[in-house]
Amino acid sequence: MKTMVSLDEAFRLMSGMCQEIGTENIDLMETLNRVLAHDILSAENIPPFDRSPFDGYAMRAADLASASADQPVTLRVIAEVPAGNIPKLAVNPGQATKIMTGAPIPHGADCVVKFEKVSVDDAWVIVSAPFQSGQNIIPTGEDIEKGEMIAQKGVMIDPALMGILASLGIADVSVYLRPNVAILSTGDEIVPIDADLPSGKARDSTAFALAGALRAIGAKPNYMGIVRDDAKAIGEAIEEGLRGADMMITTGGVSVGDYDLVKEALQRIGADILFWRIRIKPGAAVLVARKYGKMILGLSGSPGAAMISFQLLAAPYVRRIAGQDQWQNKEIDVTLSEWFKKPSPRKRLVRGRLLIEDGGAVMVVTEKQGNGVLSSFIGASLLGVIPEDSGPLPPGTRIKAYVTRGVL
Amino acid sequence: MKTMVSLDEAFRLMSGMCQEIGTENIDLMETLNRVLAHDILSAENIPPFDRSPFDGYAMRAADLASASADQPVTLRVIAEVPAGNIPKLAVNPGQATKIMTGAPIPHGADCVVKFEKVSVDDAWVIVSAPFQSGQNIIPTGEDIEKGEMIAQKGVMIDPALMGILASLGIADVSVYLRPNVAILSTGDEIVPIDADLPSGKARDSTAFALAGALRAIGAKPNYMGIVRDDAKAIGEAIEEGLRGADMMITTGGVSVGDYDLVKEALQRIGADILFWRIRIKPGAAVLVARKYGKMILGLSGSPGAAMISFQLLAAPYVRRIAGQDQWQNKEIDVTLSEWFKKPSPRKRLVRGRLLIEDGGAVMVVTEKQGNGVLSSFIGASLLGVIPEDSGPLPPGTRIKAYVTRGVL
Repeated sequence: MKTMVSLDEAFRLMSGMCQEIGTENIDLMETLNRVLAHDILSAENIPPFDRSPFDGYAMRAADLASASADQPVTLRVIAEVPAGNIPKLAVNPGQATKIMTGAPIPHGADCVVKFEKVSVDDAWVIVSAPFQSGQNIIPTGEDIEKGEMIAQKGVMIDPALMGILASLGIADVSVYLRPNVAILSTGDEIVPIDADLPSGKARDSTAFALAGALRAIGAKPNYMGIVRDDAKAIGEAIEEGLRGADMMITTGGVSVGDYDLVKEALQRIGADILFWRIRIKPGAAVLVARKYGKMILGLSGSPGAAMISFQLLAAPYVRRIAGQDQWQNKEIDVTLSEWFKKPSPRKRLVRGRLLIEDGGAVMVVTEKQGNGVLSSFIGASLLGVIPEDSGPLPPGTRIKAYVTRGVL
Repeated sequence: MKTMVSLDEAFRLMSGMCQEIGTENIDLMETLNRVLAHDILSAENIPPFDRSPFDGYAMRAADLASASADQPVTLRVIAEVPAGNIPKLAVNPGQATKIMTGAPIPHGADCVVKFEKVSVDDAWVIVSAPFQSGQNIIPTGEDIEKGEMIAQKGVMIDPALMGILASLGIADVSVYLRPNVAILSTGDEIVPIDADLPSGKARDSTAFALAGALRAIGAKPNYMGIVRDDAKAIGEAIEEGLRGADMMITTGGVSVGDYDLVKEALQRIGADILFWRIRIKPGAAVLVARKYGKMILGLSGSPGAAMISFQLLAAPYVRRIAGQDQWQNKEIDVTLSEWFKKPSPRKRLVRGRLLIEDGGAVMVVTEKQGNGVLSSFIGASLLGVIPEDSGPLPPGTRIKAYVTRGVL
């Protein structure tokens, strides 16, 4: 069993068994934030024909070359094309066709003039300015050209892509299943959140924060409750969790000590332990194992530490098995808004919030950064990286940060 | 009826009837991205007692003042406190208590020393370095202090807040209902997405893009399908939509022209028309009315224009009736990544993507910016504001932009 591995090595050890989960076909209306399971190539031009952007008259630009307020041009209106209809007559020199928003441009016409820009006299339309060929015509394929790659497999579907899929007539969409992730809390000191809180005990907050974080990245959490500090009981609960899940997260029992029993439980059930502890701080206490081809991630029972190792290690893995092409945590450069006074003999991850101020990316590092502190993650969108051997850092210091939520 | 109103005036006209919708109590596990319906003040300290951050020995710092490798201090281990248990014995001078992660600190002890930093000899523990009073003790209320304001009414619940609510024992959470928004498409040229596409017609893409955009801000879209260009039929469909919804969005039929019938339909059913057209481009064609105290937003049938007026006008309104305190679109400064070559005699809104590059906020303006173009919204997160009377803008030009998604 490897120990104190780097984040990169942790991914390397885990990626050998990154098997994407299955797919399903769902109604387009339900696809927001789901992950596309195949490439979308357009089989059509959108729009499929040249069309009018507003209500007006379709004409020949050549007829209008000499038009002016003093010398207006008068054209004969030969037809009307309501939207959704096909023009039946071509527009010949000296002619125009009344046309509605979205209607196909009649053959022969090469510009459209708005209602407001003409005068109408019975069957005649009077134009007092020249227009160019192509003016006010939405060309075939303006939005999407036939054969164009619209979206690639692994993309998270957003509202505009839903609209584009609709415009292509794709009413059922093939998407990846959402991974089922079982969450098991361990520890004699943990009680259910709706139970009385005896002195010396704590409510199971970490499981709820992790469940929310799993949902936020598209997974389906299944909270299995709390199991006492007993290797046999923990092992049985892990077996049970693995049955219905694509992967499993446990909390508690992964540090050094008498009562840290998750490792023992995993060994009892014959899971293959990949590594124990990663070189990040906070969040080092992570035990990763696998059984039945499924990953078991043992995280710290301290909610702050668990959230950090979740974001850095578990979230990318979940996104990857969920088929997302952008599974890695994005890294950006930010400047600190305030002093970070604590010296950092070791590399340190600090939670905080991204602001855009005066065109620059600023990180507001929240005050409480302890392993056990969860409140400072409320509203947080970044994990800043304070380099090893840093002293106190003044405002304006440039650091790297992982983006933990949002669309950057 | 007012016409060509500014965005600010549009909000002013609409805000008179911004009535928040009701609330419901839901299971904490289901609260991600729901809107908190009341302030959360902590009734407790979290943690409720001083506790140990790891497995080790609780001692008195005064006993260790002279400890060194040459002159280690030996203390008698008088008890053991597993996590979840209450210490029964106070630690007196010369004594220590074995203690587990998360366990309460015994009376008299004021520091904790890790297992790895001591040697143990039977009932004695040997320490070879001094520790400070308070060292390695998680103080009462480190995460949350009793009486602290945790989260205010109107906040969207994130994973960390779910965890904090759990730690406070709040298993049922009062949240605002998700607003029901009926979507009605109008136009003889529009066909359902799963039907054949006759020549001259277009599939109803706008409704799906809007439905996705509504879901993305927490609303529940109800797509009512397509109604033909007939004022009576449109009016009846709007009446039907209003019955089950908190507000309604229609598309199509709001420009100037013979077939633009939504206004006529609203007048027929006696809706109170607030204004028609707003001073933005694209997206000016908006008709806003109300009936039964509910807002009816008539948007353009062109998907690009509809998405822009949705983001600028409808989305803030939806967030507001949904109880969100941050209902307004956030505005940031960005620099253009490339030339924006088109001159802009009028203020223009351009869609694009936010990138953080070298610590700066950069907007990548997508190529196709037409009223009818939807594809350029895929992955977009900003609406940039190109000021009136701008010529071509070089890379690096600083502009304002509205953030249309993400957590900034």
